[in-house]
Amino acid sequence: MTLLSRDVADHIAHIEMTAPTRLNALSDAMIAALHAELDTIAKDDTIRVVILSGSGKALCAGHDLKEMQAGRNAPDQGAAYFKDLFTRCAALMQRIQTLPQPVIAQVHGIATAAGCQLVATCDMAVAAEDTKFGVNGVNIGLFCATPMVALTRNIPTKSAFEMLTTGRFIDAKEAHQLGLINSYASSENLGSATRELAAKIAEKLPAAVRYGKAAFYAQSQMTTQDAYAFTGDVMVTNMQDDDTNEGIQAFLEKRPPNWS
Amino acid sequence: MTLLSRDVADHIAHIEMTAPTRLNALSDAMIAALHAELDTIAKDDTIRVVILSGSGKALCAGHDLKEMQAGRNAPDQGAAYFKDLFTRCAALMQRIQTLPQPVIAQVHGIATAAGCQLVATCDMAVAAEDTKFGVNGVNIGLFCATPMVALTRNIPTKSAFEMLTTGRFIDAKEAHQLGLINSYASSENLGSATRELAAKIAEKLPAAVRYGKAAFYAQSQMTTQDAYAFTGDVMVTNMQDDDTNEGIQAFLEKRPPNWS
Amino acid sequence: MTLLSRDVADHIAHIEMTAPTRLNALSDAMIAALHAELDTIAKDDTIRVVILSGSGKALCAGHDLKEMQAGRNAPDQGAAYFKDLFTRCAALMQRIQTLPQPVIAQVHGIATAAGCQLVATCDMAVAAEDTKFGVNGVNIGLFCATPMVALTRNIPTKSAFEMLTTGRFIDAKEAHQLGLINSYASSENLGSATRELAAKIAEKLPAAVRYGKAAFYAQSQMTTQDAYAFTGDVMVTNMQDDDTNEGIQAFLEKRPPNWS
Repeated sequence: MTLLSRDVADHIAHIEMTAPTRLNALSDAMIAALHAELDTIAKDDTIRVVILSGSGKALCAGHDLKEMQAGRNAPDQGAAYFKDLFTRCAALMQRIQTLPQPVIAQVHGIATAAGCQLVATCDMAVAAEDTKFGVNGVNIGLFCATPMVALTRNIPTKSAFEMLTTGRFIDAKEAHQLGLINSYASSENLGSATRELAAKIAEKLPAAVRYGKAAFYAQSQMTTQDAYAFTGDVMVTNMQDDDTNEGIQAFLEKRPPNWS
Repeated sequence: MTLLSRDVADHIAHIEMTAPTRLNALSDAMIAALHAELDTIAKDDTIRVVILSGSGKALCAGHDLKEMQAGRNAPDQGAAYFKDLFTRCAALMQRIQTLPQPVIAQVHGIATAAGCQLVATCDMAVAAEDTKFGVNGVNIGLFCATPMVALTRNIPTKSAFEMLTTGRFIDAKEAHQLGLINSYASSENLGSATRELAAKIAEKLPAAVRYGKAAFYAQSQMTTQDAYAFTGDVMVTNMQDDDTNEGIQAFLEKRPPNWS
Repeated sequence: MTLLSRDVADHIAHIEMTAPTRLNALSDAMIAALHAELDTIAKDDTIRVVILSGSGKALCAGHDLKEMQAGRNAPDQGAAYFKDLFTRCAALMQRIQTLPQPVIAQVHGIATAAGCQLVATCDMAVAAEDTKFGVNGVNIGLFCATPMVALTRNIPTKSAFEMLTTGRFIDAKEAHQLGLINSYASSENLGSATRELAAKIAEKLPAAVRYGKAAFYAQSQMTTQDAYAFTGDVMVTNMQDDDTNEGIQAFLEKRPPNWS
């Protein structure tokens, strides 16, 4: 069984998780498949944007609980396995942010626990208006501690605390107000709305987008002073790109750029 | 005179400040009473959530200005006393966030200066719809520098700057939009709305909520990479809890958990 | 040609950029003029608030692209010039935040690229309702990496990423919802709305505002614990001010303060 489908058109790679009977759970195999797929995409200069979606009823319902429970059969009751699992899952999340290309989550159905983390982690997210989002592990006694890392870097403090400790689900409208997603659309229009957003980025100079995404998360963890020193150098590098020279010159001459 | 009343029911401790004639000002005695009360609650495993409210017309109007002015009579014009006062007040605020149990502010009337800081500091807050919030010390020549620490970690930068330098009051609706409170209700429904939120958390597995709250503020001050390493270990610990095992197993078997 | 006009009344300095034919671009000369003007204002204790606006059709359209392209004629294709330019521009932005007095951007027309950065950097911003905001350098192949530093410290993560990689413009209403501006008004009322905000601050005790602004950005880059230690000391210093003593005493005696 393949866990992912991949479709590339117009410089946009659309990756779809294809384990609908498991609500696209982030099983060991799914984590590995996604990580490998992203590593491949990272090396492909023809791909400028990535869309990540899930087949079936939902984007992703989080970790594979059956697999996790099976991990308890080890002599250490699963301690080493769990440690490794969360390390691999966190590595996948960070791979999304270190990927040269922007990644857009196309969200429908539910996005819960590590599935909600996936949405928070992607650079952008578009959701169907009837999507439900939750970090609801607390309901079964497992606090969503790793999803919290991504969630608290996207939405206000008190809302994050409430979602994590009450397990409350929010709908797409509230997710939009809080900053968890960029926009929402009807179920019928979800695919086209997501693709439209992807297409806007795919038409930009790829090098400029890559410089920008690489700097985005890095500077966010610096002091303002350090962030300015760092991003100033990014702009110098960007300016030295021949296509950027052409882009600016074309703008000044009021003509379309002739990019390589 | 007792400065606090305490009521415990259904694993929820409701602490009420009972100095209504002083608008529940954070006097030396009130700071000490609240800190001592929280230290007691921290050791009580039967308490799962804390509600903090104020009797009379308001939650809290900030520091006790009469007491502060009296402090000026010392040979150093109060320098040592003020230093100690702000240290004790900051320790109380940090005690709220290091408390094992979530703390919900039940807010009515006004929440100003250190009273607004108290709201910003609590893990969650529910307010009566006619509550007024302000960090208005600037109006009398004393900038709310310590309340700023809590405020700027809850609401957007420019709104915080405006509130602090203009002394402008905001109402519950705006406080909700900015992220300072989780929700608001009519005055008649404030108590029940707050208790409903508390009850949702009290029904969760207490250990999971404790792991989560302890990690919430800690990870927020780390780089993303460090936060993932740290919270991954939190999840491993949480998974090793027998009740978590039971919670997940019950979920997979579509039955209620049988928690100890 | 003078690049700036300056008007001072009621302790409010109104600085206007007066290069309307260049849409008040941040040319080498404009950056130098603004920085020098701010250095002068910093030393003027009679000035309590600064308003920054632009003459003509727009507040500011960002860097002077013609001048930047001319910089490419150097033997190093402009590398040293660009490095110096972004260093000087970042120094100007940081000068705004280290200025003792609050700075309010009065925004109209467009605020793009470094012009949007200017809005994000000012302590507060009031905009005409038909203003368009964008970090649209990506459209011509130059990612707005330095504007990103200011933008991401004002608005939610996913919105910032979208604006930076799609070049999408937002209007004043959306800018307000995201936290980029404090409020918006009709074009006719923009000046009076901005001045009203400035006047509210100008009537406060100047020393209190100065203590506060100096601490605002400093504490935002500290851990909560360090921020409390730092701002506690700020409050002690503020309390030792004779006018603060008078301000508090006047409040307790229900009379207006008699400030020096």
